[in-house]
Amino acid sequence: MDDQFMSENVGSHHNRRSESEVLDIYPLSCYYFGSKETTPVKNETLYDRVLRMKANYDAHGMRNCVAAVIVVELFKHPHLLVLQVNNSIFKLPGGRLRPGESDIDCLKRKLSSKLSVGENGRGPEWQVGECLGMWWKPDFETLLYPYLPPNITRPKECTKLFLVKLPPSRRFIVPKNFKLLAVPLCEIHDNHKAYGPIISGVPQLLSKFSFNIVES
Amino acid sequence: MDDQFMSENVGSHHNRRSESEVLDIYPLSCYYFGSKETTPVKNETLYDRVLRMKANYDAHGMRNCVAAVIVVELFKHPHLLVLQVNNSIFKLPGGRLRPGESDIDCLKRKLSSKLSVGENGRGPEWQVGECLGMWWKPDFETLLYPYLPPNITRPKECTKLFLVKLPPSRRFIVPKNFKLLAVPLCEIHDNHKAYGPIISGVPQLLSKFSFNIVES
Repeated sequence: MDDQFMSENVGSHHNRRSESEVLDIYPLSCYYFGSKETTPVKNETLYDRVLRMKANYDAHGMRNCVAAVIVVELFKHPHLLVLQVNNSIFKLPGGRLRPGESDIDCLKRKLSSKLSVGENGRGPEWQVGECLGMWWKPDFETLLYPYLPPNITRPKECTKLFLVKLPPSRRFIVPKNFKLLAVPLCEIHDNHKAYGPIISGVPQLLSKFSFNIVES
Repeated sequence: MDDQFMSENVGSHHNRRSESEVLDIYPLSCYYFGSKETTPVKNETLYDRVLRMKANYDAHGMRNCVAAVIVVELFKHPHLLVLQVNNSIFKLPGGRLRPGESDIDCLKRKLSSKLSVGENGRGPEWQVGECLGMWWKPDFETLLYPYLPPNITRPKECTKLFLVKLPPSRRFIVPKNFKLLAVPLCEIHDNHKAYGPIISGVPQLLSKFSFNIVES
């Protein structure tokens, strides 16, 4: 094989990546992690939860939620930041919109309360980027779909995932009853059983990006 | 419940959808489907295929592929256009880049040869939009990942999925040994077994869009 061909080969792999949208990510070690007071978490039976959801739906209509996709680097591989609640289920940072609140405002409020000193705390603003995907619940039970299922005209819940870009450094302050974990994309992908449909689908939603690891 | 509340409820669902990126889709009945001469399809053993892939990798480097995500409406639900080859496997329309060819040029060439009268045929241009996702093969076998797996520095294949927007009408002319099917997103989602990882993940990649069904 001649040399010119080889250099073209190498080049084509790099060009391929640079043609894609680039997402800068920073090493996990760039960030400081601390803790704060426990945040109350609803501890209810599935039955009570469904009753609450129904009452809320009657009063306020569809439940609108937002969640953050935040990526850091560890061992040269992208890792997703995931909250573990009471040492059991995993969730993306986020929550439910207040009446009249916008997606972006709600996500910033939730990120401040769950990952920072507080709603009115100092620290850099959260940089909320594009919507990566949406998940729909046609009823009050737990099944989620990445589309509005056929013949469903009154969906009960919609969760929007937003990319949140991190600055080169920041402090994460997490309530004591939550654990903030950095989980490798290769561990999450297609792992419904451990992480549920929303988190296990995130690597696919991120697949359009070329990750650029910024060394500190 | 008072009336003002009800109208806000209805409004909030609509606002939710209109805040998202909107994708216009047209009924399947807007399009004409015809057939043309059979296109040769490689009929080889897995062993022969791996040998061919290795030889190609040595000569040209990583195999770069592109594929089209094309959506139409049927029964008020989005359907994905999928090619069925020889009455067996399902594929998205697309194929492999020629040396030096760009993603977009390759996809237009493949769409013309597989879904239109020919590479130099008449008919409207294909409107290739944004990249929705990428799938990587670390080796010559069949496993695909929506990320470059850790410690893989010389991936063997990368397939990029592009959104292709259809005009309000067009003619699809498909080789006789292919079948072009419109499959509902609800049938495809998470159905690895029938459609493989790339197609079964498409509903999630499309989930950020609100579909606007344009009645003809």
